[in-house]
Amino acid sequence: MTQPELLRPASYVYGQWHSNPEGQTLYDAVYGRPVAVISSEGVDFAQALAYGREKGADLRRMTFHARARALKALGNYLMERKEAYYALSLLTGATRRDGWVDIEGGIGTMFSYSSMARRELPDERFLPEGKVEMLSKGGTFMARHLLVPREGVAVQINAYNFPVWGMLEKFAPAFIAGMPTLVKPAPQTAYLTERVVRDIVASGLIPEGALQLVTGEPGDLLDHLLEQDMVAFTGSAATAHKLKVHPNIVARSIPFNAEADSLNAAVLGLSVKPEDPEFTLFVKEVAREMTGKAGQKCTAIRRPIVPRAHVDAVIEALRRELGKITLGDPARDDVRMGALVSVDQRQRVRETLEQFRAESEVVIGGQEAELLGGDREKGAFLDPTLLLCRDPLNATAAHELEAFGPVATLMPYDTLEDAIRLTKMGRGSLAATVATHDRAEATELVLGMASAHGRILVLNRDDAKESTGHGSPLPQLLHGGPGRAGGGAEMAGIAGVKHHMNKVAVQADPTTLAAITREHIPGAQVREDVVHPFRKNFDEIQVGDSLLTHRRTVTEADIVNFAGLTGDHFYAHVDEIGAKEGIFGKRVAHGYFLISAAAGQFVSAAPGPVLANYGLENLRFVEPVGIGDTIRTRLTCKRKIRKDLRPGETRPTGVVEWHAEIRNQDDTLVATYDILTLVERARDSFDPQPEPQAAEQTAEA
Amino acid sequence: MTQPELLRPASYVYGQWHSNPEGQTLYDAVYGRPVAVISSEGVDFAQALAYGREKGADLRRMTFHARARALKALGNYLMERKEAYYALSLLTGATRRDGWVDIEGGIGTMFSYSSMARRELPDERFLPEGKVEMLSKGGTFMARHLLVPREGVAVQINAYNFPVWGMLEKFAPAFIAGMPTLVKPAPQTAYLTERVVRDIVASGLIPEGALQLVTGEPGDLLDHLLEQDMVAFTGSAATAHKLKVHPNIVARSIPFNAEADSLNAAVLGLSVKPEDPEFTLFVKEVAREMTGKAGQKCTAIRRPIVPRAHVDAVIEALRRELGKITLGDPARDDVRMGALVSVDQRQRVRETLEQFRAESEVVIGGQEAELLGGDREKGAFLDPTLLLCRDPLNATAAHELEAFGPVATLMPYDTLEDAIRLTKMGRGSLAATVATHDRAEATELVLGMASAHGRILVLNRDDAKESTGHGSPLPQLLHGGPGRAGGGAEMAGIAGVKHHMNKVAVQADPTTLAAITREHIPGAQVREDVVHPFRKNFDEIQVGDSLLTHRRTVTEADIVNFAGLTGDHFYAHVDEIGAKEGIFGKRVAHGYFLISAAAGQFVSAAPGPVLANYGLENLRFVEPVGIGDTIRTRLTCKRKIRKDLRPGETRPTGVVEWHAEIRNQDDTLVATYDILTLVERARDSFDPQPEPQAAEQTAEA
Repeated sequence: MTQPELLRPASYVYGQWHSNPEGQTLYDAVYGRPVAVISSEGVDFAQALAYGREKGADLRRMTFHARARALKALGNYLMERKEAYYALSLLTGATRRDGWVDIEGGIGTMFSYSSMARRELPDERFLPEGKVEMLSKGGTFMARHLLVPREGVAVQINAYNFPVWGMLEKFAPAFIAGMPTLVKPAPQTAYLTERVVRDIVASGLIPEGALQLVTGEPGDLLDHLLEQDMVAFTGSAATAHKLKVHPNIVARSIPFNAEADSLNAAVLGLSVKPEDPEFTLFVKEVAREMTGKAGQKCTAIRRPIVPRAHVDAVIEALRRELGKITLGDPARDDVRMGALVSVDQRQRVRETLEQFRAESEVVIGGQEAELLGGDREKGAFLDPTLLLCRDPLNATAAHELEAFGPVATLMPYDTLEDAIRLTKMGRGSLAATVATHDRAEATELVLGMASAHGRILVLNRDDAKESTGHGSPLPQLLHGGPGRAGGGAEMAGIAGVKHHMNKVAVQADPTTLAAITREHIPGAQVREDVVHPFRKNFDEIQVGDSLLTHRRTVTEADIVNFAGLTGDHFYAHVDEIGAKEGIFGKRVAHGYFLISAAAGQFVSAAPGPVLANYGLENLRFVEPVGIGDTIRTRLTCKRKIRKDLRPGETRPTGVVEWHAEIRNQDDTLVATYDILTLVERARDSFDPQPEPQAAEQTAEA
Repeated sequence: MTQPELLRPASYVYGQWHSNPEGQTLYDAVYGRPVAVISSEGVDFAQALAYGREKGADLRRMTFHARARALKALGNYLMERKEAYYALSLLTGATRRDGWVDIEGGIGTMFSYSSMARRELPDERFLPEGKVEMLSKGGTFMARHLLVPREGVAVQINAYNFPVWGMLEKFAPAFIAGMPTLVKPAPQTAYLTERVVRDIVASGLIPEGALQLVTGEPGDLLDHLLEQDMVAFTGSAATAHKLKVHPNIVARSIPFNAEADSLNAAVLGLSVKPEDPEFTLFVKEVAREMTGKAGQKCTAIRRPIVPRAHVDAVIEALRRELGKITLGDPARDDVRMGALVSVDQRQRVRETLEQFRAESEVVIGGQEAELLGGDREKGAFLDPTLLLCRDPLNATAAHELEAFGPVATLMPYDTLEDAIRLTKMGRGSLAATVATHDRAEATELVLGMASAHGRILVLNRDDAKESTGHGSPLPQLLHGGPGRAGGGAEMAGIAGVKHHMNKVAVQADPTTLAAITREHIPGAQVREDVVHPFRKNFDEIQVGDSLLTHRRTVTEADIVNFAGLTGDHFYAHVDEIGAKEGIFGKRVAHGYFLISAAAGQFVSAAPGPVLANYGLENLRFVEPVGIGDTIRTRLTCKRKIRKDLRPGETRPTGVVEWHAEIRNQDDTLVATYDILTLVERARDSFDPQPEPQAAEQTAEA
């Protein structure tokens, strides 16, 4: 490793880069050489927050889909520059693989959120949520929940271990929600975060003000937060508790989300024998979790919990696995584990190891293996260490103290009940693994452990090959956990976006509620037009456009012919004797005949802008239709969803959702459903440039 | 009013009633006579919490539906005893109408939650949430979120104003979730809460330990909370902030939900003229909110915001409305407004009124009207008081201090932008009203105010008659608000149940995930049987039971006949020229033909346990089917939902949801959907006793 120039990472606030010649000196983790000087001295935190709030208006003017497209473009931009980040990542003690988790995992989170937002959110600035709530018998008063962006700044206070992923996994959902971010990374590795923020700012791909950075101490930042701001913290439980009770955060009820490292367990099932694949999978997972990122992961396995009969076998297998782990300069290809972030951090881990000794003994580690590069003293190296706690049901330190390094404590158990109890003695964890191929055992363990965990991985021969592993938070899944884990919730797909929004229940008459939410609501006024709605293109169709069809009398011949054509001779349709005794008391039309005949009523047959009916939702057959009943159908535009052109697509389209109601001669509702159609857009209403295709990666971090 | 015997309301903890001869004396609100003595001296709070946690296991063993049935039965039991509650309610200063909101509104919340739980939750002990997340290309690794009850106690700390509703609106969702409750009502009106709890305990309708009561001071209760417990607080912002930073709550990341009274606004639209119905509706709503419960409601309108041109007209109209309000002993039929809860509370309101004077003037009130019964001095009477703040954009006290009584401050505005800004100067509110019949104006106001509110009512001529009003939280809707309102969230339908549960992401292979969640997942192993699944009753059918049908070749005749029979002559099916130019490039079968023919493949025609296909969900036509293609269908039991017998029903049934996949000769998926069937239960598997029918009421409170 060559000594780089001393870095002076700056803060980016109110549209300016702000740095100081003096400040805290940071040292690289491998050789202990000075690497950077940081200071936030002179940053006006009140101004930064005010600037973010003001600029947030630009972000809120974009739709979810526009934000999603910007996020994807930014992800591609960063991916092209990733080697610069890997170079700095090595200085933090991380191997290339550790860096991959941080850097490409972080950028992957942006791709995932971009993709989820376009798939699951409307192309709007707000989000109607849940169903329309009917609040009155007469149908003149109803309600719907809406989510709108909080009009403040999302402040992140991050841990040192994932300087890139830690920022991006919080930034991506906040950005999609429409909230600007101010990130305050941990000082130790802030130079890598700053490097990425430099590229983000230079890209010009997101609105100015959507991301600010404080490199150094947070000063009086928290004193200036207002009610619409929020704080997301990742780090130690002790710091979380200190910040959470900040008087201004409490006085203004500012949401404070905490992710604290936790004493995560991995349980080897009682049914697993040493010769089973799950035994090997378990051992490899524990070894990987102990040594990945030199054990500096909030989700790392700290407490492998194994059947008492297999304790010795597990220790031996782990000794073999951990024996393969080479330590040294992570820039070398033959090095499997790098250094902790700093010698201070190593000292803290050593002190915690001492505290474990009263109830646990070291069974692996303790001797210092040969280093492949790096400096034993000035670099922050620590060999993987496994302890054994023989009486874990009566232990305390093993369930409460965390050595944030390559350290785990093995615990024996006798019954599944005890194993569940041991996992819960961690008082709330981010993640746990259950290794078993016995599905009843997996069910018992998972449901038994569920109340105390944020994520549980069932590891077995069926999923191991494709599993993303114990320690990997995924954008689609909850990252958080109760109690010791901080009680917070991040990601979990679109739920992570909603965390950044305010939920409001809107009560009104149906027409007003439809106007506000831009979705048709049964009972709201509709618009009838001489032009058939299927003759209008996507841009011409309006929510509320409606067609009431001609009538059709359902005959015995219809039912007989439909049964013959489809082969559906169910007794309720064709068997006079059976049908009389059945729930309808008579022969009735096939439900599928009704929706087919309704299509025959409302379809406009000639080629036109409506290209296809590709789906159907919420179909309910409310009342039976018998021989001689007469049906007619009302079709009303319920919702419109703009679509981006995919690579290779040339015909711009949108999705139009129609609400259909079939009624009989008494105006009684017989069937209700929503149909999804693909509709051409106006030729002049779109940007014909298809988006560049990017590999949409899922993060591991 | 006759002087009742001095009450000695007790605590109900660890299965025992606990009272003290000495304690705090409470006085009735109307005549100031001693009414009750309360004390929690001697209650062992650690034991109460431990008891709740231990007994929680009984509650968790019940399913959502079993809990829902118990809640409904309990609601009926309490409703029969309501007059006893009304009698005590009068002593708190509440009129019969105020008492209705508290008592029948509270019991109505139980009916609503019972009904929502049976309609929207499975009959299980845990709740799978959201979709199955595919985490791998090969389909061997996926995930689903599950919600399980927190294994602790839900502690309620309540305000004095709704001694019944305040308890039941929190108890109902906690009970459905499977969490036992410990309620600590405000001392002033705890004797009414205690009266209700006595009946709940005596009813024997809910498991012992599911509800405990502390009457008096909370002692060291909070010191003994553990990670799985939670706290819900309703009351003043100051107390909320004090409790929230309790060291034990912080150290264990115990969820703390706060509802604080807020400075709720009501905006009269700029488009509304004094002669419009919305003007009168607005004035009546403001008067009702000022005087209902003598203004002691968290959601009451404190800030009517009106176009500057109409300030005088609004004052005059309010003077007329408020002039109709008669004060006195709420036991009298001719009394429209009772007393505040205590003379101390009146003193606090008077002090706040003084603080308003610097920026507002009193325009209505100030003279003491004649009382109809009650004692002017010893009773806590206060006349309705309207202030006018002429420069509200530059005011502070009017937006920050709350007089928790029949007091409001009128504010003029010039533009909608200013009106929105004024509402937000309350720094976060529980509720707001917008009175306008102009839908564009309603949309601008609602979306503009949305980030700072928990609920917004649009009041106009269309919904006024059925509207539940500005101040009424509803079980279906969010009750909570950002910032000043406490940042909490209660009710909101099933979301309020979920607040009491822990969410965990479970990752596994599809077969294991299906076993854990008890729902079939595409890719999971299925079971094929010689018996057709439609020949099995509800209790015999198992999740994963599957049928692969015979094949059918789709012919040109099928398409032609289907078009002729249904009348659907869409060009993609019947027009060789148009279809060639269309998106499929050829004539294809109707989508509805495919699902109809699939039914023809999988239906078992003779009468049997499957009574009807009553609905369909998630239908997607994935690939077109052309002339000569051959389809076959796989039908697999996805999920089972037990159903209660409704009154009058004699045939016990359940809902079976089937996943259907239609594939072509290349095994390519052409359509996927889920069908809902009604299936008979085994004759010996049910309790044939139908449930008693109860009016399911919605609460107003």
